[in-house]
Amino acid sequence: MSPAPGRLYGLGVGPGDPELVTLKTVRRLRESQVVAYFAARGKAGNAFTTIEGHLDASHTRLPLVYPITTEAPSGPQRYDDIMREFYDGAAAQVAAHLDAGHDVAVICEGDPMLYGSYMYLHDRLAARYTTEVVPGVCAMLGGAAMLGAPLVYRDQSLLVLSGTLSKDELSQRIQGADAVVVMKLGRNLPKVREVIAELGLLERALYIERATMPGQRIVPLEDVEPGSSPYFSLVLMPGPKWQG
Amino acid sequence: MSPAPGRLYGLGVGPGDPELVTLKTVRRLRESQVVAYFAARGKAGNAFTTIEGHLDASHTRLPLVYPITTEAPSGPQRYDDIMREFYDGAAAQVAAHLDAGHDVAVICEGDPMLYGSYMYLHDRLAARYTTEVVPGVCAMLGGAAMLGAPLVYRDQSLLVLSGTLSKDELSQRIQGADAVVVMKLGRNLPKVREVIAELGLLERALYIERATMPGQRIVPLEDVEPGSSPYFSLVLMPGPKWQG
Repeated sequence: MSPAPGRLYGLGVGPGDPELVTLKTVRRLRESQVVAYFAARGKAGNAFTTIEGHLDASHTRLPLVYPITTEAPSGPQRYDDIMREFYDGAAAQVAAHLDAGHDVAVICEGDPMLYGSYMYLHDRLAARYTTEVVPGVCAMLGGAAMLGAPLVYRDQSLLVLSGTLSKDELSQRIQGADAVVVMKLGRNLPKVREVIAELGLLERALYIERATMPGQRIVPLEDVEPGSSPYFSLVLMPGPKWQG
Repeated sequence: MSPAPGRLYGLGVGPGDPELVTLKTVRRLRESQVVAYFAARGKAGNAFTTIEGHLDASHTRLPLVYPITTEAPSGPQRYDDIMREFYDGAAAQVAAHLDAGHDVAVICEGDPMLYGSYMYLHDRLAARYTTEVVPGVCAMLGGAAMLGAPLVYRDQSLLVLSGTLSKDELSQRIQGADAVVVMKLGRNLPKVREVIAELGLLERALYIERATMPGQRIVPLEDVEPGSSPYFSLVLMPGPKWQG
């Protein structure tokens, strides 16, 4: 007789400071037999480092190693195919543990539903297994806290963008927005900086690297040297201060 | 000789489930002598209820009671004046405790920097006192987690709006956005619903009340009866699903 299937947990672990993990994520981690995490080849990844202190020898570690990193191989279509196959394989690995009756915690930097790789497992597995998503503190709120900058006042709006958009798309969307956060910088940083400069918004924009983690760095975007930036960075433009 | 001034903490307590509080917020709460919280007259408020279990008899409770609630008195200018005076008074009460050498934890539903009342204390006090902001899980991510719906994929963007905007402003901004969250609903709900219906987006929109709390309710926006809704509600339109 096969065991009852395990439960799938998508756990947000917050922006990087191990103390910014929620009580619920800690509890679900301790209750799980398997801890799965996305990581680049040869690296444990920030999510794992953040929660490592809550694991013991009884936890099975399941790294899901990205097949490619920043270098697109041969065109976007090929990239999509590679990632689709990768997520299919990762979902199958997680499913094997669930079928064996183990609860699997998939840990995610920030929040699982905001650009998290967990989403691609969720879409493949949530209909088949009992699933719980535990939200986390997202990177941009970690950044705003470290900055000590209120992000949006009263009737202001907040726009969260991916730096992978084209220059035109970025420009069009940032124009007229109150508060703006640009994520997924990496090699998109020079492009993002250029768009913000052209819109005359450079003096309102801040660049934040490794928010809440050791090595945190916050500088005005105008002072950032052109070139790429680590994955754990974002550009933040708080809404105009309300004089109230 | 006067004591060294206390420290000001702006603590996010998350969307409502007491387990969605971070380890850092719990630690800062326990270390503080005073716990301050914004609340409507006669009510403890959700932030207080969420973290009450971590307080003991040694904590001084400092409710900061809003002078008015949803009813605008006599025009927007008058409202701004009343709120400005209220925040001035609240900041003075908090400052008195800080001057007496007490650490003051100001607790905030969700995150302190995303539409939080704490921002108005921060703007008045952070330059004068040692201040630390501890980010929290914001309501919209609590909602997305309960919904089990990935919010933004890949290069999609997320727009967070206040329901207090005019119909035209809401319509203009929601048009062409990928994923949308509308906060501050209350009596703005019928207007928000109308805008989304006119844009032909009703079937993608969900209404979430009291996410992660007892009495949580998630329904398609089309099924929500017209009329006002509690403050702790939001409309959520996840980005189109990525077939990856």
